[in-house]
Amino acid sequence: MSPAAPTPAYRRLSVEERRAQLLEAALSLFAHRAPEEVSLDDVAEAAGVSRPLVYRYFPGGKQQLYEAALRSAAEELRHCFDEPHEGPLPARLARALDRYLTFVDSHDAGFTALLQGGSVVETSRTSAIVDGVRRAAAEHILSHLGVSDPGPRLRMTVRMWITAVEAASLIWLDEDKQPPAEELRDWLVEQFTAVLTVTAARDEQTAALLHALT
Amino acid sequence: MSPAAPTPAYRRLSVEERRAQLLEAALSLFAHRAPEEVSLDDVAEAAGVSRPLVYRYFPGGKQQLYEAALRSAAEELRHCFDEPHEGPLPARLARALDRYLTFVDSHDAGFTALLQGGSVVETSRTSAIVDGVRRAAAEHILSHLGVSDPGPRLRMTVRMWITAVEAASLIWLDEDKQPPAEELRDWLVEQFTAVLTVTAARDEQTAALLHALT
Repeated sequence: MSPAAPTPAYRRLSVEERRAQLLEAALSLFAHRAPEEVSLDDVAEAAGVSRPLVYRYFPGGKQQLYEAALRSAAEELRHCFDEPHEGPLPARLARALDRYLTFVDSHDAGFTALLQGGSVVETSRTSAIVDGVRRAAAEHILSHLGVSDPGPRLRMTVRMWITAVEAASLIWLDEDKQPPAEELRDWLVEQFTAVLTVTAARDEQTAALLHALT
Repeated sequence: MSPAAPTPAYRRLSVEERRAQLLEAALSLFAHRAPEEVSLDDVAEAAGVSRPLVYRYFPGGKQQLYEAALRSAAEELRHCFDEPHEGPLPARLARALDRYLTFVDSHDAGFTALLQGGSVVETSRTSAIVDGVRRAAAEHILSHLGVSDPGPRLRMTVRMWITAVEAASLIWLDEDKQPPAEELRDWLVEQFTAVLTVTAARDEQTAALLHALT
């Protein structure tokens, strides 16, 4: 027990509050260490509660806690995409990317572990959660483009760009967050316009959208 | 036992030949099914040998066989990037992509399982093999660009494009290999030029390279 830390330990929390508190503690640990390096004892200590209490909320142990934390992070990530359907599209995309990069910045190692795979706690279920976020991102973009029935070339372009953004985020974390987030954001928006322009030459649906972006 | 299959079974093969035969059988199974759906019995049957023989070569069982098959596939994939440093760069890139898409086409489900993660046989070692191929691809591209000391923006652009190509391959397999490989290849080359052009506006090193590509 760390004597310095104020211990909110056995304060009466509602079930929901306690659960949220444990998830928050877990997320902050996963943000700085790979999932395999985080123990339930660490989570209990970070939350200022006993190990049995963690088990009471997550009887499936670390795997269950990790998945719940991941779901909670995925939910947070989805909120990054909430953007009113107003104003120029590049500016909307830039605002969503700002929120996304803030998320990446704060979740750091946990974000990397999650996306790089090969983690001991990675399963087809955790992959499905991550894929769900990717799909949500693609749907948001298509809805901002005003497309309800995207053809294969447009869909592929959007999904490729989302993957490229993920790759950029991982490299960015790996390279001490260089270039600065604002520059990375603008550069990613420019890349989006550039790849859509390339696709427009091969796809009428994409060509019809382009004027909205430029 | 399938009565129809000609059984090369206990023919005398050298250790290396036998090992290659088992890997080939494993790869062809992994090409059509997720690794968790392939048993050592399947591999033995496909190679026309006994299960104990498979174990003699791969005492670590399926995990060891999978990793060996993966290394062998990674080696094959690296050969896709072998391209003489001659002629226009877009044409070189197109030829490498042709070979890459042929590889993706023939390894199909195994390629998907490998890159999508969440597989039961995925470990930090298998992830490292896949990452090694990605790094090799990036090094090849930079060497064709004639760059020995790439700055962070150029490096990031190349790595993002490689990830986007991977994403395109997975989507392509998922969408019954549409658009046709030749169209996908040309489209990917155009995207490479487009993202490099975007980066060139932010990075002198990239700007200096662009004339070679256009």
